[in-house]
Amino acid sequence: MPDIDDLTTRMRDFSIQRDWEQFHDPKSLMLALVGEVGELAELFQWLPAEKAAALAQEEPLRRRAGEEMSDVLLYLVRLADVLGIDLAEAAAAKMSSSEDRFHPDEYQGAAPVKE
Amino acid sequence: MPDIDDLTTRMRDFSIQRDWEQFHDPKSLMLALVGEVGELAELFQWLPAEKAAALAQEEPLRRRAGEEMSDVLLYLVRLADVLGIDLAEAAAAKMSSSEDRFHPDEYQGAAPVKE
Amino acid sequence: MPDIDDLTTRMRDFSIQRDWEQFHDPKSLMLALVGEVGELAELFQWLPAEKAAALAQEEPLRRRAGEEMSDVLLYLVRLADVLGIDLAEAAAAKMSSSEDRFHPDEYQGAAPVKE
Amino acid sequence: MPDIDDLTTRMRDFSIQRDWEQFHDPKSLMLALVGEVGELAELFQWLPAEKAAALAQEEPLRRRAGEEMSDVLLYLVRLADVLGIDLAEAAAAKMSSSEDRFHPDEYQGAAPVKE
Repeated sequence: MPDIDDLTTRMRDFSIQRDWEQFHDPKSLMLALVGEVGELAELFQWLPAEKAAALAQEEPLRRRAGEEMSDVLLYLVRLADVLGIDLAEAAAAKMSSSEDRFHPDEYQGAAPVKE
Repeated sequence: MPDIDDLTTRMRDFSIQRDWEQFHDPKSLMLALVGEVGELAELFQWLPAEKAAALAQEEPLRRRAGEEMSDVLLYLVRLADVLGIDLAEAAAAKMSSSEDRFHPDEYQGAAPVKE
Repeated sequence: MPDIDDLTTRMRDFSIQRDWEQFHDPKSLMLALVGEVGELAELFQWLPAEKAAALAQEEPLRRRAGEEMSDVLLYLVRLADVLGIDLAEAAAAKMSSSEDRFHPDEYQGAAPVKE
Repeated sequence: MPDIDDLTTRMRDFSIQRDWEQFHDPKSLMLALVGEVGELAELFQWLPAEKAAALAQEEPLRRRAGEEMSDVLLYLVRLADVLGIDLAEAAAAKMSSSEDRFHPDEYQGAAPVKE
């Protein structure tokens, strides 16, 4: 089963089984997502930029980064589910759109425009 | 192919083909992720909380929400790839951990502890 | 002494005295700011929107909200200082700009355009 | 008049005059704050970390950074006002707390603990 659909179903069942759907309106889920993004940011904030990727290979940072990225993803798939949006399909379409919009020759090594 | 792995590969190839890997250190990708989360937040900020989900069914909000959620996901999978973390595996493990940690009977209808 | 200038001076001295200036490049301070915004968001995420302001009058939420808002402000003034930007002056100018841009008659009760 | 109090009063009057108080519940203001933090992050995301401060001295980046930092500050003071929290007082108290908590001798040059 595609993993985004699988996570979506598991988060939905998880919420239903705990009667937490009542808390999962879009604005509340957005704030929960922001909270997890903040925890992820804190892991990297004081690391030297050029060493951050290497330092993130060491524990406990590596495990914590995986957990915080997972929390961000889980709230994101939950938000998409609440909105009735197929996140996997939307992301694949956005990826195709960027591949067309930013031609390799034109954007070669040029600081990417914010997508 | 699992969709997270597929998006990861497409974002990696997309970056290599444009020589954008040089910009994709963890702290820069984190800030790009924050930028996309901000754009997603702006879509919902002034909507009445109880009507947000319904209003998000209408265009152009529905399409824009899908695009911004996709941007968040694409930078998240890119960050995981740069860190060498299997996001699909990490998210499935985090989901299992939460299912065990928050027993349905104990947390029934209780405002969820931040996960 | 104007309070923003005072906080700016105190954060600068605080950083110098601990030899923390080396950590305070703009991107690191931005991630630290994001971390504090995330902690602030977590305080409100599951509160019913219409009761959030009232619930925030109760302790310990009221004290925690003040602390997290303070952390956001302190990193913001530190970032402005590192960039050599007069935040108090810039904010007063932005306020004047918004007062001119959004005429009360034209925007009366209309969902505010993102500023 | 202290600048934070001045900005607070101006944002309050600005909101009352446009009948926008109805939109300014804590969760909505939090999302608006997140939106502005995202716009600020986008200004720095792809800049080389070690050159970011210098590059931010050049226009139009310098002006834009001042405007986005101002937007963050204005929503922060508005949120504090809605919560009835004296942000200037809270920030001064948090600053004093950090000055006491992180003794210069103990934290000399050591990556700061997240405050």
